[in-house]
Amino acid sequence: MNPGKLFVFTGPSGTGKGTILSQVLACEPQLRLSVSATTRQPREGEVNGVHYWFMSQAEFENKIEHDAFLEHACYVGNYYGTPEQPVNDQLAEGYDVILEIEVQGAMQIHKKRPDAIMVFVAPPSMEELSNRLHGRGTESSEKVAARLAQAETELSHQSQFDYVIVNDDLGEAIADLRAILRAERCRVVR
Amino acid sequence: MNPGKLFVFTGPSGTGKGTILSQVLACEPQLRLSVSATTRQPREGEVNGVHYWFMSQAEFENKIEHDAFLEHACYVGNYYGTPEQPVNDQLAEGYDVILEIEVQGAMQIHKKRPDAIMVFVAPPSMEELSNRLHGRGTESSEKVAARLAQAETELSHQSQFDYVIVNDDLGEAIADLRAILRAERCRVVR
Repeated sequence: MNPGKLFVFTGPSGTGKGTILSQVLACEPQLRLSVSATTRQPREGEVNGVHYWFMSQAEFENKIEHDAFLEHACYVGNYYGTPEQPVNDQLAEGYDVILEIEVQGAMQIHKKRPDAIMVFVAPPSMEELSNRLHGRGTESSEKVAARLAQAETELSHQSQFDYVIVNDDLGEAIADLRAILRAERCRVVR
Repeated sequence: MNPGKLFVFTGPSGTGKGTILSQVLACEPQLRLSVSATTRQPREGEVNGVHYWFMSQAEFENKIEHDAFLEHACYVGNYYGTPEQPVNDQLAEGYDVILEIEVQGAMQIHKKRPDAIMVFVAPPSMEELSNRLHGRGTESSEKVAARLAQAETELSHQSQFDYVIVNDDLGEAIADLRAILRAERCRVVR
């Protein structure tokens, strides 16, 4: 059996990467979503190994020391990270594995795993992204302004990726990601 | 407007590359097939600029001297080649251009145009290729044996290509080529 391929899927907040990915996962049985690890408490209904791998701070830090994460970061006092072993296990079983992750984390993985296929989702324009973030109506204008500033920085990393999907039309963006998965299965590994 | 991308489509005789390509061209309006030049006489119904660019031997040799071909070869006393200018014109107009070509010619283009995306069509196995070539019933067993020997040499070049499509199932092979075209439109050019 051929091993699967590792995909990293990222992009600024508000570009719709979660929506694209959930629809692609629903129709690509060969593709598995990587499960992140966290030290935060499980919320009601969250299942260990499905939504997150829940672990104690000591356990997480021990894994950091043993270089067991593809990437990790600390947000609001909790650790979040991508354990490498479950990813490698699924690749060895022949599944493709995709990580949905922040741009900074994606850049960490890019260094650690040059075999990872890097996919970036971009908004059609900064103006459109601004409209979308304001349109959500769930955040203060200060928070939206901060997200837009971060998006601008993140967009400057686009050229370091293998593929950029401009999410102008959801159906087209879904078709783009599916085409990338399929094409990469035909790709000659050097 | 973004320039189009150049695709080279090749593979041993009998792998079905012509069938795959004609079906993909029928549903990809952004894709244009490159027209070859030749010094052989036009057959009935063949139109200049559609089936071939027909030219005299002097004209062809003059173009060779001026390095006007992406690749060229001589078969049975006639020249065949791919003029570079019409390809560049269509790319500049934003069309993707695909060349269907013999493996040796593909390797020539690979050296001359490192931007070309190289796609190789392989049979599921040598046994299956042998069955297909014998099944055609149009050639002597000596000719089929010669084609199989040539296919074996050509298959050894697979690893120098960007993509390999194994033509086990025609529908899947068509979907593979379409996915490669679509994915390459998202690909970041370095």
